[in-house]
Amino acid sequence: MKYSQLFGKTKKLAPKDEITVNAQLLVKAGYVNKLMAGVYTYLPLGLRVLNKIENIIREEMDALGGQEIFMPALHPATIWQKTGGWDKIDVLFKIKSRTERDYALGQSHEEVVTPLAKEYVSSYKDLPFSLYQIQFKFRDELRAKSGLLRGREFPMKDMYSWHQTQEDFENFYEKVKRAYLKIYERCGLTAKVTEASGGSFTQKISYEFMILTDAGEDDILYCNQCEYCINQQIAQSKEGDVCSKCNQGKLVKGRAVEAGNVFDLGQKYTKDFDFELANEKGEKFYPIMGCYGIGVSRLMGVIVEKWADEKGIIWPEAVAPFAVHLLDLGNKDYAEEIYQQLLKQKIEVLYDEREDIGAGQKFADADLIGCPVRLVVSQRNREKIEWKKRKEEKSELLSLEEILERLR
Amino acid sequence: MKYSQLFGKTKKLAPKDEITVNAQLLVKAGYVNKLMAGVYTYLPLGLRVLNKIENIIREEMDALGGQEIFMPALHPATIWQKTGGWDKIDVLFKIKSRTERDYALGQSHEEVVTPLAKEYVSSYKDLPFSLYQIQFKFRDELRAKSGLLRGREFPMKDMYSWHQTQEDFENFYEKVKRAYLKIYERCGLTAKVTEASGGSFTQKISYEFMILTDAGEDDILYCNQCEYCINQQIAQSKEGDVCSKCNQGKLVKGRAVEAGNVFDLGQKYTKDFDFELANEKGEKFYPIMGCYGIGVSRLMGVIVEKWADEKGIIWPEAVAPFAVHLLDLGNKDYAEEIYQQLLKQKIEVLYDEREDIGAGQKFADADLIGCPVRLVVSQRNREKIEWKKRKEEKSELLSLEEILERLR
Repeated sequence: MKYSQLFGKTKKLAPKDEITVNAQLLVKAGYVNKLMAGVYTYLPLGLRVLNKIENIIREEMDALGGQEIFMPALHPATIWQKTGGWDKIDVLFKIKSRTERDYALGQSHEEVVTPLAKEYVSSYKDLPFSLYQIQFKFRDELRAKSGLLRGREFPMKDMYSWHQTQEDFENFYEKVKRAYLKIYERCGLTAKVTEASGGSFTQKISYEFMILTDAGEDDILYCNQCEYCINQQIAQSKEGDVCSKCNQGKLVKGRAVEAGNVFDLGQKYTKDFDFELANEKGEKFYPIMGCYGIGVSRLMGVIVEKWADEKGIIWPEAVAPFAVHLLDLGNKDYAEEIYQQLLKQKIEVLYDEREDIGAGQKFADADLIGCPVRLVVSQRNREKIEWKKRKEEKSELLSLEEILERLR
Repeated sequence: MKYSQLFGKTKKLAPKDEITVNAQLLVKAGYVNKLMAGVYTYLPLGLRVLNKIENIIREEMDALGGQEIFMPALHPATIWQKTGGWDKIDVLFKIKSRTERDYALGQSHEEVVTPLAKEYVSSYKDLPFSLYQIQFKFRDELRAKSGLLRGREFPMKDMYSWHQTQEDFENFYEKVKRAYLKIYERCGLTAKVTEASGGSFTQKISYEFMILTDAGEDDILYCNQCEYCINQQIAQSKEGDVCSKCNQGKLVKGRAVEAGNVFDLGQKYTKDFDFELANEKGEKFYPIMGCYGIGVSRLMGVIVEKWADEKGIIWPEAVAPFAVHLLDLGNKDYAEEIYQQLLKQKIEVLYDEREDIGAGQKFADADLIGCPVRLVVSQRNREKIEWKKRKEEKSELLSLEEILERLR
């Protein structure tokens, strides 16, 4: 992609109405545009990142045996009245049609997916099974000042699963947990799993996936040897204590932000929608249901909070909009040749070929946009190309062959 | 994909509340599930088809130089008040938040995309340019009884372009027209372009893309030699007349359904949002704007209306959920081997390996689901595999090598 043609160039100043690092950088660098608080347009750069994160999530959900579907955002009021959500859930957007019908906008999809599962599943032999979607949620948040971390409209991956026994749910949850940890790792993040309370409708435990970052909203304590992790607010222990789980490691304190959760929904929704099956002995039972969420744009925001410096974003390779940012500093024909060579090798490259923009601005834009590798072609470098990783200080002069070798 | 594991099996009966062929077949075959009138969940099979249609559209829009973005569905009332749409557009869903803020749900995106373009484009040198998205639209339709042909929530590709002159817009429109005709052709459809009135806000001409199908809602007259086409309702000519455009061909009558449109928006929106640029002489002008829509789910519905028989759907290859439907009629080990071979060759295959289902039901399901090629493995066929195209009557016994050769 030639930068001169890209819609959504960098801005000189960070937006005054954004207070978080993720929103300041993503708006300034041309990834997103704010329509109103908590509601963003994804510009071409931002959509590329969003798609990459979505595909990572999709691959891991497919690997779990999850089947992808796409449920509507516009719901009849009746399904929300049936579960009590119509009156109890304060973030639920409500709409009256011109023919006086009542609708809700999906803030989650238990109310749609449970009757759907009931319609197509008639035997205990079909259990366990899981469905997921990557779709937009709508929430009437009172405040939405955290950029992509809290939206009024935002893309989310939500998966739902059904089980014959609690044990089977727990087994499946362990698999989902490993898939989630893999997703975060592929996105360049380290996650810890904490127990939390179970949300609006259940006394059961839920799990939160906390990403370690100084920009986090919560303090957590985690063991340096086992998986134990707890929110400091509810912890009985303190930093430096021996881990109460493994009795070996020590507790370390860290700041973290939530970027995923799991709810054990029990039989709440299967009972509400009368989704009943018979077991091998012919005895009726209501399946146990789990719900597993990852806010996709929130994850994008968390990555930026974690991977940024004073100059801009530093994308992990797997989610970068382009692998390479190529700058021409006055050796146009040669730069064009390099660009074509990179395209030919199917390397994703953003090519800053602007003629009326100085070197300083081009360097600043490249640092702000944050592609993993910056290549500079100039008269001074002659046949050599300057290679620099966004996350490192040192640069090197390499031949085209050496560069292609490294990018392969 | 193994059919026993697929979520969303075929139903025995067509739904009673659906009156159109597209909805009856798509629901019965397990592609979509109706949440309420005009609002459908896409099941795994349906999502596969939708994604294929979207990718065809995406490729053709990218080839035009269109840049993909993603705009929100939740809009502040203010932008709709600015253009007059808040009061004039009767299908606009309106929402009041719990803090008494007014929102609208996007029924189209001129109100979002025009201020967006204004924010990032500051020179006439950036014209012409175009942005598009594939996103869900919400419309408060009084009636929604046509299945996927008219939805209250539905995926749409909408592109917008900006131009310095009317001539430049016309040139761009010609390119879009060719891209649209290519999209329909790739989806197995033949489209004709007719002139129509310009919608709510303009006296200008708009263009509609009409797909020839007996299930259509409109009668059109088109020339059998040139591109001329007109809605019969406003035609001065009749079937058999000499074409008034080329003076050579004769007018043929056909039934058709609309599956795309183009609006010349003039300066309506650029004036409303004060999107003004200076030309090469420094003179201010408001860019001319075009809007180009294709309802993606509508297109899916039209394909089904066009390509179906009394047994079910007959998907064109490019949009079929799977290239091959493999049936095991009692030669399990060999069928499994064929399945693995097809997967290895990256051929998309739906494998009906159910053991408790008879041959008749499997054949009926395959015809209903409508994958382009059906393969049957049975004891009677021994090493040979029965090959049959969904759209043809004849079947053949072939070796695995011959089949792989044909599918390549």
